[in-house]
Amino acid sequence: MTMVLHGYYRSSASWRVRIALALKQVPVEQHPHHLRRGEQRAADYLALNPQGLVPTLELGDGRVLTQSLAIIEYLDALYPDPPLLPSDEYDRARVRAFALAIACDIHPVQNLKILQRLRTLEAGEEQIQQWIVDTITEGFDACTQLLPPSPGPFCFGDRPGLADLCLVPQLANARRFNVPMRWPRLDAIDEHCRNHPAFAAADAAVQPDAE
Amino acid sequence: MTMVLHGYYRSSASWRVRIALALKQVPVEQHPHHLRRGEQRAADYLALNPQGLVPTLELGDGRVLTQSLAIIEYLDALYPDPPLLPSDEYDRARVRAFALAIACDIHPVQNLKILQRLRTLEAGEEQIQQWIVDTITEGFDACTQLLPPSPGPFCFGDRPGLADLCLVPQLANARRFNVPMRWPRLDAIDEHCRNHPAFAAADAAVQPDAE
Repeated sequence: MTMVLHGYYRSSASWRVRIALALKQVPVEQHPHHLRRGEQRAADYLALNPQGLVPTLELGDGRVLTQSLAIIEYLDALYPDPPLLPSDEYDRARVRAFALAIACDIHPVQNLKILQRLRTLEAGEEQIQQWIVDTITEGFDACTQLLPPSPGPFCFGDRPGLADLCLVPQLANARRFNVPMRWPRLDAIDEHCRNHPAFAAADAAVQPDAE
Repeated sequence: MTMVLHGYYRSSASWRVRIALALKQVPVEQHPHHLRRGEQRAADYLALNPQGLVPTLELGDGRVLTQSLAIIEYLDALYPDPPLLPSDEYDRARVRAFALAIACDIHPVQNLKILQRLRTLEAGEEQIQQWIVDTITEGFDACTQLLPPSPGPFCFGDRPGLADLCLVPQLANARRFNVPMRWPRLDAIDEHCRNHPAFAAADAAVQPDAE
């Protein structure tokens, strides 16, 4: 049975998983949920993903996984070629730390859900824009320092991995929100990734639900 | 050389790592940084942890790790006894998803840093309190549904693991912020954990920098 990926074209967490699946050439059926219309809060979706977040991966045998990084680690264990993490445990931890710096400390603090919550506090649009810029700028400033000193072309060496999967969608978010970009090394990694067919196939702009 | 854990007694991310070290009986020297006084932004600390967050683990040979979940996965690989993750890959993914539901979607959205940022938006203390209650309540409601149907006594079965490491400090945060508690199963797991010597040794209240 084919796996089903529940996502949203612009959700960076869904995007990470799409890249992983494309790199590993695992076929998947996509099932989009329109986040701005609140489709992720429908009862049948909440039964799959109690957090009401995307992505969710249905494995095709009744089993279900949530949380992009958990899904990616699972895919990496089940379909080890190409690997998304280095084999050395210290190197793995460095890559995971970079990914978590985005997945914990940038993305959840500037995603749609938080922005909607900020509006309930009657924050002005200018303040919200500043919130986004500050969160992403601080995050990417740190990310550049979490990279290894030796040049890529990918985040950690000469093949794409978990760090790149998290970086590319977050950079797209930054551009979408007009964050002043000041990270040439991240841009160079991004450009190299975007020339890779798996990253191109996973891009938000070419998904079936892209607007 | 002994490892050095840079942390803060009340930081739930530091607390998670303390529990992991205690469960595995790995000796560590603690180096506290007072977050409310901004010590995590000192230049010498930023050289270790460019995000200016705790925890950071110095391995004793010049190598440094950041991000609690990356550190815990590293410790689990290096000191496999007792394991903090199940051996089956699907089960591992379910445990990681529970941990990430706390580490990505609750903790970073209600930690000290965000609360300070909300104050710069001139949010009132009542609104900030509601933000905390809403974030934690929504998160724990989902967490209870991410648990396996069979009873513990720990989150995922009969021994403590990554999910418990994340849950116990987040529950302490919830109580500290007077969140109305409505999750008897989480409370029962918490009580069981707190009776475990490793959890007791890692508790915020007994750390050298506890106030």
